[in-house]
This record gives sequence, C-alpha cells and structure tokens, in this order.
Amino acid sequence: MATSWLRIAKESPFSLANIPFGIISTVQDQTPRPAIAIGSFALDLLKFSAKNGFAHLPEFQPHLAVFQQPTLNQFAALGRSVHRSVRTYIQDVFKEDTPYSKLLRDNEELRSQALIPLNDVTNHLPMDIGDYTDFYVGINHAYNCGCLFRDPKNALQPNYKHLPVGYHGRASSVVVSGTPVRRPLGQSLKDPTATPKVPSFGPSTKLDFELELAAFVSKGNKLGEPISLGKADEHLFGVVLMNDWSARDFQMWEVVPLGPFSAKNFSTSISPWVVLMDALEPFKCQGIGADNNEHLLPYLKHQSGETAIDIRLSANLNVSREQNDTGETQEQSNTITLTSAKNLLFSFQQMLAHHTIGGCNMRTGDLLGSGTISGTGPGTYGSLLENTKGGKEPIELADGSQRAFLQDGDEIVLSGMCGEEGQYVGFGEVRGKILPALEM
Amino acid sequence: MATSWLRIAKESPFSLANIPFGIISTVQDQTPRPAIAIGSFALDLLKFSAKNGFAHLPEFQPHLAVFQQPTLNQFAALGRSVHRSVRTYIQDVFKEDTPYSKLLRDNEELRSQALIPLNDVTNHLPMDIGDYTDFYVGINHAYNCGCLFRDPKNALQPNYKHLPVGYHGRASSVVVSGTPVRRPLGQSLKDPTATPKVPSFGPSTKLDFELELAAFVSKGNKLGEPISLGKADEHLFGVVLMNDWSARDFQMWEVVPLGPFSAKNFSTSISPWVVLMDALEPFKCQGIGADNNEHLLPYLKHQSGETAIDIRLSANLNVSREQNDTGETQEQSNTITLTSAKNLLFSFQQMLAHHTIGGCNMRTGDLLGSGTISGTGPGTYGSLLENTKGGKEPIELADGSQRAFLQDGDEIVLSGMCGEEGQYVGFGEVRGKILPALEM
Repeated sequence: MATSWLRIAKESPFSLANIPFGIISTVQDQTPRPAIAIGSFALDLLKFSAKNGFAHLPEFQPHLAVFQQPTLNQFAALGRSVHRSVRTYIQDVFKEDTPYSKLLRDNEELRSQALIPLNDVTNHLPMDIGDYTDFYVGINHAYNCGCLFRDPKNALQPNYKHLPVGYHGRASSVVVSGTPVRRPLGQSLKDPTATPKVPSFGPSTKLDFELELAAFVSKGNKLGEPISLGKADEHLFGVVLMNDWSARDFQMWEVVPLGPFSAKNFSTSISPWVVLMDALEPFKCQGIGADNNEHLLPYLKHQSGETAIDIRLSANLNVSREQNDTGETQEQSNTITLTSAKNLLFSFQQMLAHHTIGGCNMRTGDLLGSGTISGTGPGTYGSLLENTKGGKEPIELADGSQRAFLQDGDEIVLSGMCGEEGQYVGFGEVRGKILPALEM
Repeated sequence: MATSWLRIAKESPFSLANIPFGIISTVQDQTPRPAIAIGSFALDLLKFSAKNGFAHLPEFQPHLAVFQQPTLNQFAALGRSVHRSVRTYIQDVFKEDTPYSKLLRDNEELRSQALIPLNDVTNHLPMDIGDYTDFYVGINHAYNCGCLFRDPKNALQPNYKHLPVGYHGRASSVVVSGTPVRRPLGQSLKDPTATPKVPSFGPSTKLDFELELAAFVSKGNKLGEPISLGKADEHLFGVVLMNDWSARDFQMWEVVPLGPFSAKNFSTSISPWVVLMDALEPFKCQGIGADNNEHLLPYLKHQSGETAIDIRLSANLNVSREQNDTGETQEQSNTITLTSAKNLLFSFQQMLAHHTIGGCNMRTGDLLGSGTISGTGPGTYGSLLENTKGGKEPIELADGSQRAFLQDGDEIVLSGMCGEEGQYVGFGEVRGKILPALEM
C-alpha cells in the first residue's frame, strides 16, 4: 500500500484506502458543501475544485458543479465510473510519488484553505433522502426477535429466506450523527396480558437502539423498469452506519397488522461519511447468505458466493456520571456489541433487485437499511432487546448500573471498520444521546 | 349561492364553491405550473398572476413567486389563511357583481391566455411528496379484511379503535391520474396451504384497487415537536382521491411481520386537483368515528363530533371491448362501489396528531392516505378483495364477463363529490389502466 505525504494515524478509519464522501460546514463558512475525510482532516471539495484541484481529471471538468451542492446527490447521480475516477484521483493527490502529489503538498495556501481538521468540521446529512426503506436481513436478529415474540420453532417466518423482508421507513426523520434523540411519547400497553387491552399514554419506557448498515442509491430507475441483480452495483453509491432507534413498547402495541410506525419514525441516525462501494470491494467475502443463495428465485440469485462485506461492527453505550468531588461529568463507555456484517442474509444488491422487481422506482439518495445486525451469542447482539431478552435480563454496565433499555442521557455510539491497521476502510461513528421526553 | 359569469355546468365537480388547485401544462406551453379548476376550464395562475391578476390582493403580493413553481409546495407552505384569501379572491373574480368580476370577464386577451379548456390540459402531480403514509382507518374495510384473513370475532386488532393504524408507504411511485399501471412481477405462493412454503415468481394474479382519500400537508413541524390535534387544521392543505393499487398475492406472502411492501410500492395513483380544506368545511358531519371519540386518549380526542367529511365516493371498472363489426374498441363502465367518507374512523387531523406525537416531523407535501373506504354491504366495498370475498365470488360485469381481480386493459376510475348539483365540491377522477406485466 502506498503511503501519503499527509500524516495519517495508523488507527484512523479514514486511511488512503478509504476516501469517504460527506457534507461539511465550518464556523468560518457555514455553507454545507462536499468533502472527503482523510486521516484527521476533511478535504473541502468546493474549495479544492474552485482552485483547480481537479484540473488533471479532464473527464470530470463538465461535472465540477456537483461540488457546489449542499448534498452529494448530484455527485452520486453521475454513476460508479465517475465515483471511481474521482476517488482514485484524490488518492493520487494524497499519495507520495504520483504526478499529482505536489498539488496540495506543495501548495501551502491551498492546504490552509481546503484541508480542514475534522475537529473543526460540522457534518450534515450527506444526501437528500427521497425514500428510506429498512430491510430486516440480519438473520440472527430476526431469529432472536422471533424467539422472543413467538417461539424458536417458528422464529423465522416462512418467507424469510426467500426474499429480503423489508418495509418503508420515514425519510424525514433520518438525522446525522450527533443529533440528540428525544424520547418519544406514544401509546403502549402497561400490562400486555390484561384484558381488555387499553393503552396508556406516555414516554417510551423501552427505548432501544438497532445496529445497522445502510446503502445510498446513486442512479435510480424508471417506474416499471426493475434493476436486475447484475446491474445493481451500478446503482449503489456507498454505505453508512445506521442506528434505527426503536420504542419497543410502542412497537408491541401498534405493529399488527401493518408493521412498525410510531416505534421507529421519531429518529433514525446515520454516520456522516459515505464509504463508496469501490472502497468496500476488497472486503467482499462469503457471508451467512452464501448457503441460502442456491435456493433463491433467479432474480435474487448471485452468481458468485462473495457477496457479503467483512465489516467489523460495534455498539457502545456511554453513560455520563457526575463526579461527587468535582461536580464534573465523566463519560464512561461500555462496549455492548461486537459483531460483523457477514451476518446479513442478503446483499444490498439483492435488496435493490427485490425492491424494484415489481417496478418500484428508486431515486438518487434513497436509503436502504440492512436491518439489525447480530451475531449468535452474548455480546454480539445489535439491540438491547436481544441483549436483555426483551428487558427481562438487564445488562450490567461498568459503573455498576443496569440497563434493560436506554435511560435519558445515555449515548449510543456505533462504529464499523474494514481492513487492517494503517489501511483501515472505516465508517467512523454514528452517535446519538437520549434527551428526556417532552412534558405531557 | 352566487352565480358566475362563466358558464359552469350544473353537474361540474368544479363549481364556484370548490376552486381546487393543481399543476398543469399544455401542448403550447409545457412548463408545469399552478392552476385552479372551474367548470370545464383551468385558470393558469402563472399567467394570471403575471398579468396582475392578483393586483387587488395586496397581502399576497410578496408571495406571487409561488405560482412560478412546478409544484404547489410553496403555495401550500404559506398556510391556511393565505389559501383562504386566495381562494376567496378567485371566487370573487369568477362571481358576478363583485369588485373583481370584470378582471377576467371583461378582458378577452387575459381570458384567452389564462383560461384553458380542461380538455387541453395535462395534469401533473400537484405536490413534491417528501414522505407518503398510508393509514388504515376505513373501519369496514379493516373489518372485512380481518374476516377474510382471520375470523369475524378477531377481525379488528386490539389496537384498532385506539389509534389510527398506519404504515409508511413509497413516495417515489405516487403518480397522477391517467398514468398507466404496469402489472408487477413478484413472489407469491401458488398454493398457500402446501408445505413447505416455496414461492413462485411471476406477474401478480390478484391485482386490486383500493378506494381512498389522501390529504396533503401544508406546513410541517420540527423534529421532536408534535402537532396537537387542535392545531392540525393549520397543517393540512387539501384532499385528493387515491387508488392504492395492491397485489394481493404478493401481500399475503410478504406481509408478515413488517407489513406490505412489494404489494403496494409499484404504483399509487392520485387525482390531480387538490380540494382545499376550506372547500370541504361545509361538509363536516358526524361520521362513524363520533362514538369512538369518547374512548380515545386525550391527544386524539376531538372536542366536536363533526369531524368526518360527507364525501360521496364511487369506483368504476371500465372494460375495453372490441366491436366485432367495426373492429373499434368501446369502453364499458361498471359501477362497482358507492360509498361515503363517513366510514373513516379517524379524521385527517387525528392522523396528523398521531403521526407526530412521538416527534416525527412532517414536511410540506407529505401525503396521508386514509386507508380503503368501504360501506357495510354489497356494492359499497372499496376493493375487489372485499367485493369478491378474496376472489372466491367473482363479480359480474355488464358485458357478461367476470372479475375476481383486475385483468390487463381494465381501467379503474374513482370519483368523489360533496354537496348539491350546481354547487358541487368535487374531486374529479383518478384513473389508471392496467398494462400487461413485463416479459420475464
């Protein structure tokens, strides 16, 4: 692997091998604008392109205006070959010993304008999201939930292994990492076994997180014209981490017969840096879906077995503690989940093929959530629901407190990483802290 | 009721009492632009405002640019008091004996430019739809479906009368009346009773319509800040007819546990003219929800009993027949549904209050479907599923043919009307014709 003239920490998720795209602003310039992340810096693509940074990429000249946009939609819509050439070019700009090494390295003025410490950057939603769909293809999560709500024998529904189960989510309440999450008010049954079933109103008492990945659509399709599995790669832009916050008490009450609604639509958080499909390509591997592939209908059957992505995932629960002596608050982090994206039964390509098979049209910026990703044993579960057996077996935190579900002030931090130290292709983090419910 | 100097047929849905808003274009001017419908004409609001048509509405002067938009979103976002003053002003322009009667009546040039026969107009989607939610508050439909899929005793789920049950739908595939609907491909069980359950792939063989109403959101709310029931009126723009096309065979297979997906997301058709909330105000009445209101949680409880709208609704199935002698095709219309919007258990205001109670943010242009509207006996059912008892008892058409579900070439026409002849507040129609599936 080539090295960069820029000092990039070995443990950085944003190595030269990554080059994820996002939307940033700064205190000095509050215009939301495209950027990439590298090491502990963002490269401001609005500034970089305005100063002829892309002068040596002639085929991209007609498209420079995409970096004057407040979202990545226009860039994404250019399609995968353009993403590839821009990413490769930016890698060359940061590598030693390429024809473009000197562009930034030897131009102190441009560096000072376009290379901004990530600490000074505010991240925004990377895309304008038209529709958001959440799938449910984390098979261990689906199985665990099925065991909790039904029984191990009938845990997975008959359709589960035949199609990527999914539902339409709420696009308006997708927020970027760091946005606080207000505990929602809503209806639930205080005692689900009592009859008649009369709901109570109040703040959710079973607030949970869900560890997911989500892919952005680059180019859409026309209504009535499905995207075939073989062409799906051309329609995917990149991947982010997603926390699908869930109010389990609301969900239990409302979910029959049309699916989750108030339980999910109060907030969904995503990480700010979109890791492009090309950056993930080296980490393709056989996942849990490889065996299942054989039995699929032709429109969902992959030709190769290496359709999963080997992304290591974690969830941390951060608790703020007030120090008795100083009155200062201290953050205490608890790793509650370590798992892998190999636990997804279907690929994003399969999700896209299934989503459009009936003719449903995708648009640039549409978001496809994977569903909760869990492993198969303690410490690998992507939700508190699974970690605590529906709240019945609270987990213990390092400060001695217990959690069945999330408390006000709790912060969930999801992160994801591919590859090896020094050349990590990482997602960074998606953070969200729980605010108390509105007063009733 | 005042009369107009414009000749308006007694049977027109677009009387002086209505003034619905839409987006039109013409062969001569293909720019999509705002208009209202009156009698058999559209008043082109881009032209009318450019020619000082709104000169006598001083408070509207700062907002004239909203009629230079290709959607009604900017106009809707101005809020209900502005919609009211613009609608009242336009009524005055068309009434005899008002200070503004002469504006159009006595200006032949302006009339020839701005008043366009509806027959010469192409309608477009009236709003840019951010999110689309479909509720399920047609209680007779919910009951009928419950009887088909479960049993009469458990037909309605325990939550049904406590909250407006709803789910997130697909916004990208909402299309305007007249757009053909391609029969979708997808998965279903040929024999649902066989084990193991192995799906087949192919065109839907149980394609159905659903007769619904849908409301557009005018002003949104911030994430985390619910819209109270008392304020909901201020956030609603107007109402259209909606046909929520449904592939029942796909739905049966995929619906558990997260709700309908491929069964619905291939197309949803709406009527082009948005009937404003103010136009519907005179038709408020006690609906089927009045008795239910008493038992609701406070955030859903209306203070008055007159919260339904008395809209007469119909569904027609048009069949094209080739004449043996001439080879020409002839349309034959079959009225298969006559019902009323009084059959909705919850109001759009209640849907909005419930949708946002957990903090979910609405945006201008969001669409709220009512769910299928059915009465309680034969000839009042808003879907073929109910009309044919799940396909087991096909209905007979005037040409002697039978329908369990829709055939290629069938056209569904929904219409809706309030009030009395000569002063109808009508919705016009939403039409959609079934195209054959793509070849596999």
